Amino acid sequence: MTKKIIKLTVRDVRFPTSLEQHGSDAMHTDPDYSVAYVVIETDQGMQGYGLTFTVGRGTEIVVCAVEALSALVVGKSLEEIVSDFRGFYRLLTSDGQMRWIGPEKGVIQLATAAVLNAVWDLWARSEGKDPRKLISCIDFRYITDALTEEEALDILVKAQTGKQQRVDQMLKEGYPAYTTSCAWLGYSDQLLKQLCTDALNDGWTKFKVKVGADLKDDIRRCSLIRQMIGPHNTLMIDANQRWDVGEAITWVTRLAEYKPLWIEEPTSPDDILGHAAISKALAPLGIGVATGEQCHNRVMFKQFLQASALQFVQIDSCRLGSVNENLAVLLMAHKFKVPVCPHAGGVGLCELVQHLILFDYISVSASLDNRMCEFVDHLHQHFRSPVVIQNAHYMPPKDPGYSCEMLESSVQTHQYPQGQVWKKLQ
Amino acid sequence: MTKKIIKLTVRDVRFPTSLEQHGSDAMHTDPDYSVAYVVIETDQGMQGYGLTFTVGRGTEIVVCAVEALSALVVGKSLEEIVSDFRGFYRLLTSDGQMRWIGPEKGVIQLATAAVLNAVWDLWARSEGKDPRKLISCIDFRYITDALTEEEALDILVKAQTGKQQRVDQMLKEGYPAYTTSCAWLGYSDQLLKQLCTDALNDGWTKFKVKVGADLKDDIRRCSLIRQMIGPHNTLMIDANQRWDVGEAITWVTRLAEYKPLWIEEPTSPDDILGHAAISKALAPLGIGVATGEQCHNRVMFKQFLQASALQFVQIDSCRLGSVNENLAVLLMAHKFKVPVCPHAGGVGLCELVQHLILFDYISVSASLDNRMCEFVDHLHQHFRSPVVIQNAHYMPPKDPGYSCEMLESSVQTHQYPQGQVWKKLQ
Repeated sequence: MTKKIIKLTVRDVRFPTSLEQHGSDAMHTDPDYSVAYVVIETDQGMQGYGLTFTVGRGTEIVVCAVEALSALVVGKSLEEIVSDFRGFYRLLTSDGQMRWIGPEKGVIQLATAAVLNAVWDLWARSEGKDPRKLISCIDFRYITDALTEEEALDILVKAQTGKQQRVDQMLKEGYPAYTTSCAWLGYSDQLLKQLCTDALNDGWTKFKVKVGADLKDDIRRCSLIRQMIGPHNTLMIDANQRWDVGEAITWVTRLAEYKPLWIEEPTSPDDILGHAAISKALAPLGIGVATGEQCHNRVMFKQFLQASALQFVQIDSCRLGSVNENLAVLLMAHKFKVPVCPHAGGVGLCELVQHLILFDYISVSASLDNRMCEFVDHLHQHFRSPVVIQNAHYMPPKDPGYSCEMLESSVQTHQYPQGQVWKKLQ
Repeated sequence: MTKKIIKLTVRDVRFPTSLEQHGSDAMHTDPDYSVAYVVIETDQGMQGYGLTFTVGRGTEIVVCAVEALSALVVGKSLEEIVSDFRGFYRLLTSDGQMRWIGPEKGVIQLATAAVLNAVWDLWARSEGKDPRKLISCIDFRYITDALTEEEALDILVKAQTGKQQRVDQMLKEGYPAYTTSCAWLGYSDQLLKQLCTDALNDGWTKFKVKVGADLKDDIRRCSLIRQMIGPHNTLMIDANQRWDVGEAITWVTRLAEYKPLWIEEPTSPDDILGHAAISKALAPLGIGVATGEQCHNRVMFKQFLQASALQFVQIDSCRLGSVNENLAVLLMAHKFKVPVCPHAGGVGLCELVQHLILFDYISVSASLDNRMCEFVDHLHQHFRSPVVIQNAHYMPPKDPGYSCEMLESSVQTHQYPQGQVWKKLQ
């Protein structure tokens, strides 16, 4: 019995997080964490839930793009889609007219992710996937010079060894996480101290600090956190694209004494060669470069890997074109021997990306070395199956699907601009 | 007396060009040439016209993005904007919330171009610009490792020498152009022959052929055109991103005997390192690589230049963030000694880009070596001041402004979906 998709709805849902400076960084000073929230429905009444994350204004543009893509989805059956998922992926990303306004980047790529996340959610509720089937979801166009289909299959087949052990391990221990919740750029030192104390008490050992707006502030904040967490816990710093290449090298060198594991997004997310120069300059200091949350497609990640421009791959469940494209990046990262440490936080990103990173450990990399997944303790209460964190680890989700179904009451209250929360703020 | 912008309107205007396969290529098989058309109005009743080009579906998304940006423009005076145009440019491209859905790429970048093109049009109608003022329009963020503000100013100051001679020369001879109108992928051999004969009679000496869908077809078409134009005229080929890296090298090698000057868009527009590999492989055959019409910002062009990944820079008046960002690219190209050969065609791209390439010759490069501007003979009749081509040269526009004011009757007839043309097709 086929499942025909007969309806797609998309809503603009925003949370007024800027009121309390949650999520603030050097470039996004007042984010209202938001999503374009997609629900697809089959003729048998099954639903699939998907979303893409945004930070407020402009969400309506992504909603408009999802509506434009909707015509390519509604009327198709799930079976038809997954029997040639690569083809369907390409249909969405390479429509002869719509690709002009991307291609595979920006608004249209975020919209593609929202739609496909819903399709994966629907699919995940119905059956298991073997390596060959997964490979058939990947569009290898433009990446065969770095990873062929045969190599990708080979990686997945090899990782079948020890798979059950890793599943059991994850069910017991969970996947290691780090926290970004302690040190948003807009937080006062006092709040930062308090949150850091709480986090240490809760078992956190890895901490990320936002930097990049003012060097003196950064020195004070990094010094403070390093003091609080001690020499053996892990510190990462994140500049959110604030610097030029030379500036990044100078600035991070000044922060080297606080021993950050990585500098995240030192410069433009498009600057592969710039990241390579920064990587080279910082390597002697033992500081790696991490980037990816605004890396828009597999072609960009391919080059970051080819150019040794990053030492940590930060995939994003909504910036890339859903699971399909994330699979390509996980497999390339494995081939280039670079660890994947996903970007998360926002709204629903933790819920989504936990699936990808568990898959990476269980079915691709089989390693936890230098690997951890970002966690931000925020807005999870709006989801039907929120992430479960135990002792600073992501515990594998048990409900079927891709975990991004929101509570209908939350959606309605936060819909923009007509929801109650926004009406009150006007 | 300041000119306060009090209104911005944007309309979705589409031409059903797919009906006759105009504009068809290996990736865009059925384009309906379209624009998001912007008009800004001052409190004194002056108007500025701007647009960005699209190929049909999805134009409504760009319109939605222009509407979102409108709040950053309406209420400001032209003087306020141009007194810190760099700051205004960054306001539009780096809004703390909207930048997430770019940044500086895709839909939001196209919308930025449409809005800023209208601002430049308004500004162009009122006054001259000296080198220092032009430099102050450029956002050097992320490109200082390739070009500093001082170097940029130095280039413009040096090019003051001989400027008047070049102005006179352009007024007399015009800027050299090449034609893409003869050989769209969807055209029959017979139509191709006829158009080529006509073009030769009209004085054209440089011809571009679309390739990439089928090798045998390409061989036949290239052979046919080379025969018709003879050994001394110039042939370029354009694959519109159809290939992977290895495939591009193999395919173009098979077409080398027809002596193309360049292969355009051999692979993903994001693949800097891929283009570098292709450039290296094709150099011994005397074939250069050209790309840029889907290169979305200065950071990408910077890397293409740094990596020797192209031998011809194809700027686009609407893909990049208007004149501001095109200035940055023209100056970088000059520093790296790579000729600029703009992308044009579509709707209004010729009208816009002629200003940029004339500026390049007169005020930046002072050279015509290996330089020419694309021309497509299409849809010009819808503009108030259409381009003037004489003997295969662009004759400098004489009317004030940026030449993209459309005839109101054309806009109304082609507005999507309510215009008469579209109503008839439904």
